[in-house]
Amino acid sequence: MFEAAEIGNSVAKADYDVRVPALRVDLINAQYDLRHAEFSVVVVLTGDDRAGVNETLNVLHEWMDPRWIRTRAFDAPSAEERERPGFWRYWKELPRRGQLSIVIGDWSTRAILARLSGRVSDAHWARTLEHIESFERMLADDGTLLLKFWLHLPKKELKRRLKRARTDDGAALRVDATDRLLYEHYDDAQPVAEQVLRKTSTAATPWTVVESTDAHYRDLTVAGGVLAALRARQASGRPLAPPAVASAADADPHTTVLGSVDLAALLPYDVYRARLLELQSRLRARSRKARKKGVSSVVVLEGWDAAGKGGVIRRIVRGLDARDYRVVPVGAPTEEESAHHYLWRFWKQLPRAGKLVIFDRSWYGRVLVERVEGLASAREWRRAYSEINDFEDQIVEHGSALAKFWLHVSPDEQLRRFEAREKTPYKKYKIGADDYRNRDRWDEYVAAVDEMVARTGGVEAPWHLVPANDKRFARVAVLETLCGVLERALDRA
Amino acid sequence: MFEAAEIGNSVAKADYDVRVPALRVDLINAQYDLRHAEFSVVVVLTGDDRAGVNETLNVLHEWMDPRWIRTRAFDAPSAEERERPGFWRYWKELPRRGQLSIVIGDWSTRAILARLSGRVSDAHWARTLEHIESFERMLADDGTLLLKFWLHLPKKELKRRLKRARTDDGAALRVDATDRLLYEHYDDAQPVAEQVLRKTSTAATPWTVVESTDAHYRDLTVAGGVLAALRARQASGRPLAPPAVASAADADPHTTVLGSVDLAALLPYDVYRARLLELQSRLRARSRKARKKGVSSVVVLEGWDAAGKGGVIRRIVRGLDARDYRVVPVGAPTEEESAHHYLWRFWKQLPRAGKLVIFDRSWYGRVLVERVEGLASAREWRRAYSEINDFEDQIVEHGSALAKFWLHVSPDEQLRRFEAREKTPYKKYKIGADDYRNRDRWDEYVAAVDEMVARTGGVEAPWHLVPANDKRFARVAVLETLCGVLERALDRA
Repeated sequence: MFEAAEIGNSVAKADYDVRVPALRVDLINAQYDLRHAEFSVVVVLTGDDRAGVNETLNVLHEWMDPRWIRTRAFDAPSAEERERPGFWRYWKELPRRGQLSIVIGDWSTRAILARLSGRVSDAHWARTLEHIESFERMLADDGTLLLKFWLHLPKKELKRRLKRARTDDGAALRVDATDRLLYEHYDDAQPVAEQVLRKTSTAATPWTVVESTDAHYRDLTVAGGVLAALRARQASGRPLAPPAVASAADADPHTTVLGSVDLAALLPYDVYRARLLELQSRLRARSRKARKKGVSSVVVLEGWDAAGKGGVIRRIVRGLDARDYRVVPVGAPTEEESAHHYLWRFWKQLPRAGKLVIFDRSWYGRVLVERVEGLASAREWRRAYSEINDFEDQIVEHGSALAKFWLHVSPDEQLRRFEAREKTPYKKYKIGADDYRNRDRWDEYVAAVDEMVARTGGVEAPWHLVPANDKRFARVAVLETLCGVLERALDRA
Repeated sequence: MFEAAEIGNSVAKADYDVRVPALRVDLINAQYDLRHAEFSVVVVLTGDDRAGVNETLNVLHEWMDPRWIRTRAFDAPSAEERERPGFWRYWKELPRRGQLSIVIGDWSTRAILARLSGRVSDAHWARTLEHIESFERMLADDGTLLLKFWLHLPKKELKRRLKRARTDDGAALRVDATDRLLYEHYDDAQPVAEQVLRKTSTAATPWTVVESTDAHYRDLTVAGGVLAALRARQASGRPLAPPAVASAADADPHTTVLGSVDLAALLPYDVYRARLLELQSRLRARSRKARKKGVSSVVVLEGWDAAGKGGVIRRIVRGLDARDYRVVPVGAPTEEESAHHYLWRFWKQLPRAGKLVIFDRSWYGRVLVERVEGLASAREWRRAYSEINDFEDQIVEHGSALAKFWLHVSPDEQLRRFEAREKTPYKKYKIGADDYRNRDRWDEYVAAVDEMVARTGGVEAPWHLVPANDKRFARVAVLETLCGVLERALDRA
């Protein structure tokens, strides 16, 4: 979930100064309208960037009318609070219709901290996650607009801040012992936070992970997200409409997960040949071990048209025994497939023990082509993220290896390949008017990939974004990653 | 969840013979219409009455057109099935739109059996419950009409059947070793089954628990439930409409949970005085211990108008120290309360450690008066059951004692009391036109109580239905039950 918030988003001072005045006016107006609205708003502001949470909170108070903001900060529960069930204090402080609350130290954050303390059993933890989900669903069902922002600071940035605090008095004021503790436990904390974010990101109450390194970007994203959600809700009037959530791209359309991929990566032919043969032989060995141990593998290949998926697949299977793998090309669903749930055709194709299945395009079509082309409704593709997460959780829990790739090329490189295909007799069939048409929606696909990575990535089922302007680099990168994923699954088996 | 299915429902042979022919025609017609419908139907047929499941399955095949029924029976997973994630075999066999499947040995049943075997860890169990919930939510979101019937056999009836099998060859054919095992483990199995049923009874996919003792009643309830749900869905056309689920009362409107309460129960004055004083002193002792141990108590008093709630409360508090308790009278919500989630005002009132709060009417107003009077929409009160279950789970998990009472009087007794109130000067204020008007909806309230007990009762938070035609009997019964509940909470603390 955090990959999409480690890509160096930032907003220049001059740009920031231009945007803020208009944003402030819009926010105040939205607040004014809210006072007569039939719903309440709860903004959860949290994350691993503790200083950032406080700064953004102050900025929101400065930009909005503070008289109409109720801020509720929850620390470790007091003696009196511990006398009631855990959610009592949150319930008590819920805003009424027409009010906006900002919550600091919310239920999810407190749960993560308790879990990290080691005092929470597995069974208690599972119940807590359920209560969080029920609580948020209840609020959303009741019409509350619940906006959850997680301010994320990459580990190296936190380290940099702590270091600077040693020499700079101003910076020192903004960090304390808890931040140092946070740094020490960073690697333990991230998977726990990620689990909570995945589990509690439903269609109605998704988390927005905000890259927090650059304060301008962070504040514009949060404030802009609050504004967009308020406006969307006031416009739709529907009590159950999922909020339009600010993607990290809203503040600066040029920084996206795909934008962070280094397309200049390339591999000279000699190196490529040697690495390829070495990796194919490594894959062959692992695949034999997987057959013996009964560990199956699921490989997902997504990417732009002409990004080279076919070539990658050929290089993978060359490392495998024919009876061990199967390639599933995924196109438009058949009539029979359309008459079932969209996941049905993918469930059916899951590999037996020890086998490997390569999906050439996959269930992600739901949140890519079906979203962009309007083949799925907003309700449908929004809830697909948690449906997909549940599907992949089951694959991973079963002990299978799961490797997901997006092959990334630039629009120019794609065009070059399209044109080359038209000139090559045996590749001509691979190109049609559709392919050119899809190029018009490039930016929409970029936004869809952004949200896909943010909502379905993570420790258990990460996305691998592969630079594929150089086909050789892409093939080696995929094979190498695949070997690694398979090895980890074998270690767990 | 099972209380409402242990009340002796039955349908006489003559009545059954009259109803079946029309039901068969309607079922066949509904099946015919379904073939062109835009949704699929999955009927889950399971329960602790194994023989009943088979008999009902056969009856459905007889009454419906078997060519248009796909039956899928799942046993322990085969070697091939175990090679994939657990839900693979269920996904694979899902019907397409326009088809109806009956599933025997469904995901919930298999999960319960695995859990009872002791081979499933707490963490794995929690994940399984989540996957079941996600799976069913996905199907419902996709438009599948999912109907889940749990055929319940009270323990004493199972015992009777096993006994009869020893002497009667016909009966012997219908029981086997698994049934004997089931009987031995009955008390362990019921709480596990109940947990699954509670957790997976959502507004869109509720369980219908069917009393299975009488075969006529059982078959009519299941077949009638399938028909009603099909008809409701075909009429509404809405893809997300919650199915109209057959309550156990549909087949025979005279048998209800309230109908099973023995209103003839009474207590002579002398016995009453002695028992009352004894129980008040027992309650006083327990309440002191609760204060010391920090165990709080939540008492819910519901019941008909003039059922004697006030008198019961006065007898409870006489056994308590004034600083230990609080009575919360619940009426129509204030303007401030209406501007919040309906549970907000109840959360706020939860007791501190060691204290006792009596709710004179409660959150159950949502599924009683608000349902019957149309103050809450069907969407709202249908989802309230799981909202209430989550609320009460948190109270119980916190270690508090929770005691829920429904004071039951007959319509005649109520009328007598209304008239008496009008004649008593100091009670006259207690009676108004509303009270008489509510009597017109008696049957609707009876049905609402039935569903309330079925969906929110259970081992952790059972309903106590108290016969209150005799006020003395009711007071003693409530006090005695309350002492018991408090004692169990103290033992756990």
